[in-house]
Amino acid sequence: MRMYDIIEKKRRGKPLTREEIGFFVNGCVAGKIPDYQVSALLMAICLREMDDRETADLTACMADSGERVDLSSIPGVKVDKHSTGGVGDKTTLIVSPVAASLGVRVAKMSGRGLGYTGGTIDKLESIPGMRTSIGRERFLEIVRRVGFSIISQSGNLAPADKKLYALRDVTATVESIPLIASSIMSKKIAAGSDCILLDVKTGSGAFMKTADDAVRLARTMVSIGENAGRKTVALVTDMNEPLGMAIGNSLEVAEACRTLKGKGPKDLTGLCVELAAHMLSLAGRGDLESCRTAARGALADGSAFAKLKEMVEAQGGDVSVLDDPKRFPKAKACLDIAASTSGYLYAMDAGQWGVASMQLGAGRRTKDDGIDGNAGIVLHKKTGDFVNAGEPFATLYASSEDLCREAERTLLRAVEVREEKPARRPLVFARVTKDGVWKP
Amino acid sequence: MRMYDIIEKKRRGKPLTREEIGFFVNGCVAGKIPDYQVSALLMAICLREMDDRETADLTACMADSGERVDLSSIPGVKVDKHSTGGVGDKTTLIVSPVAASLGVRVAKMSGRGLGYTGGTIDKLESIPGMRTSIGRERFLEIVRRVGFSIISQSGNLAPADKKLYALRDVTATVESIPLIASSIMSKKIAAGSDCILLDVKTGSGAFMKTADDAVRLARTMVSIGENAGRKTVALVTDMNEPLGMAIGNSLEVAEACRTLKGKGPKDLTGLCVELAAHMLSLAGRGDLESCRTAARGALADGSAFAKLKEMVEAQGGDVSVLDDPKRFPKAKACLDIAASTSGYLYAMDAGQWGVASMQLGAGRRTKDDGIDGNAGIVLHKKTGDFVNAGEPFATLYASSEDLCREAERTLLRAVEVREEKPARRPLVFARVTKDGVWKP
Repeated sequence: MRMYDIIEKKRRGKPLTREEIGFFVNGCVAGKIPDYQVSALLMAICLREMDDRETADLTACMADSGERVDLSSIPGVKVDKHSTGGVGDKTTLIVSPVAASLGVRVAKMSGRGLGYTGGTIDKLESIPGMRTSIGRERFLEIVRRVGFSIISQSGNLAPADKKLYALRDVTATVESIPLIASSIMSKKIAAGSDCILLDVKTGSGAFMKTADDAVRLARTMVSIGENAGRKTVALVTDMNEPLGMAIGNSLEVAEACRTLKGKGPKDLTGLCVELAAHMLSLAGRGDLESCRTAARGALADGSAFAKLKEMVEAQGGDVSVLDDPKRFPKAKACLDIAASTSGYLYAMDAGQWGVASMQLGAGRRTKDDGIDGNAGIVLHKKTGDFVNAGEPFATLYASSEDLCREAERTLLRAVEVREEKPARRPLVFARVTKDGVWKP
Repeated sequence: MRMYDIIEKKRRGKPLTREEIGFFVNGCVAGKIPDYQVSALLMAICLREMDDRETADLTACMADSGERVDLSSIPGVKVDKHSTGGVGDKTTLIVSPVAASLGVRVAKMSGRGLGYTGGTIDKLESIPGMRTSIGRERFLEIVRRVGFSIISQSGNLAPADKKLYALRDVTATVESIPLIASSIMSKKIAAGSDCILLDVKTGSGAFMKTADDAVRLARTMVSIGENAGRKTVALVTDMNEPLGMAIGNSLEVAEACRTLKGKGPKDLTGLCVELAAHMLSLAGRGDLESCRTAARGALADGSAFAKLKEMVEAQGGDVSVLDDPKRFPKAKACLDIAASTSGYLYAMDAGQWGVASMQLGAGRRTKDDGIDGNAGIVLHKKTGDFVNAGEPFATLYASSEDLCREAERTLLRAVEVREEKPARRPLVFARVTKDGVWKP
């Protein structure tokens, strides 16, 4: 078998066999195939695509390229959850303790943020003392005892993905549904849970700009998961504006705590109830409506919040900041930003809010950048709200006023104010299961 | 400017600017752009193509990546000729002295053979003493004095092409009309002639399997040449069977000499008259019909043959083998091959004759292979001829009988004998000029 022939076959638009895909993935990880051949194949896959069978084979080969986590020592159904990334998306911090408080086990490996999207690990690490790199045994023990644990993803999980992603990132071959789907699902499958709930974001602040593309990605991932024997469901959800009222690490932890106490913003609370209900439903806890009721109950009675504190404490974090988020260190500089005209916030351009958050220091431009755990944005208005000229619609937090001014310029360009009120968008565009696509 | 953005733009199917193409070509030659980015862009170009303006810009940037040969010290019109490569194609050895004997200057840089296609330099080097690597001044002096010279291509001619071709060769990105056209034309433009005649082969023994693809390639190359201020014409010619009756280096030199003495095979002689007439016509020597008459005259009166001898002598070659090709060393082994049934030779599969010739030792599998100058094939029959069962249709020459047997197996599989006579194919499918495509 020769890599040349595999590249040529895909260039001609022909499907690759499982053996050919295995040859490529294993040769790539072993360093036997030069990068220039790998990147040529990646570009051919971008432009010629892969069918569902090829994508499932690619995912399986990538999942098999490293360790597969064994969760069999944890009793009960294990449900994983993954978001394709957005701005202000702190749902993992909320839905994991909700699910755990209702008896579902969540053994979650998360990533850090890059570019305009945040990462759960960065958010957790804004809690003083919190450890997200802990040994495998300790991780399993916390899941068994507390019901959930969130740690940073180990380097040995799907190393093929790590290698391929690094090449895709520098060769403009990131945006390909088969490559995105296999990258995400190889890690989810290697991470060992029985069920997988996917939150596929769509809109100006998401990788998938249109709902149609997001549904295609969701269908591909659900098909991969089901083929690998995992019960998999995807929700396609809105990312045209930031989720909730906070962007930035400790600011988002504070908002997650408020939400867990039943005092969260409507959009965030609504989405978390949907996500948690689907996790419960995947775990066999009844129909969706009764799962929604259970999730709402766990927010209302404080049991989910107690579960988050239990997990943070188990991983060394200072739970006092959760009880009283004012204890988080304050950013040195803050700046209110306001529109110059009165009208309705018509469009927010979520991606630019992510960029502004990065400019404030809350995110990374490159993998090696440090971040400021207390920088970020608090929104006072959302799409559809009326703002008066000069009335602050957000407050920026950073280590210097210069950073605030840079982010302000970004946001004043991003936000559109109009006389007319925008049409309401649904928060959930579609639910994708192995049986099809359901639009609410 | 970032290579990433250039790759992404082409992946999206957008045309690249001249500046972007220059950034890529120069960065590639300077080693500033990693191979994995170059190969990703090459694949994107393969699948998204380039328009005529982009292809012309790519060619110009490649031509400018190295030396541009200055032919201004040679008086008169300089005409270059290029074949896209075929089996038994020794036309350069014939049309160059024909044109030179009629006062047109040919300063030609040629390549070696690779795979199933032969190269003019290998053929010339089968002449004892013949030197094809001579200094630039000596080359120009021979063109001035004799009228033509053929030397092997200098490494400093379009080094960007050398670098890009090496990558294309291992990433399955060779077959792309913009990339093929720019590769050929960058060298032709850097080589400095005023006019360029292209022989674009089509058929089973050519890179372009269909006449339509060959015409597309021809149009692209003519457009590039004309944009660069060179009068450029292309003939699209048949390569479904070997050209003439000889394949292999000294065997082809001998056939070229016979043809220059007016005793060549009909197909080869006919094509050489067409090619030489177009070279003369490009140089302003009158209309095509009168140029054909002149070319036929130069074959008939021995002046073209005398010109070949003059050039070979100037480059140190032993002209006695040209007068008497029996003086070429004999291959140690020879084998007649015959069909097992009687009938018409219906199809030859020229590419397989090239493979057989390579198996006999006359060609290279890889660039570093040596070759046997006296190995090869003499055909006794061509497509449309009747063969009796057991009657030899070709004789193979090699250094051992084993090699002959290997090539025999290839050819017996390649040749198709049928009761019916095949339809006659034209030798010239189309003539492509800046004004359009003309089919005879």
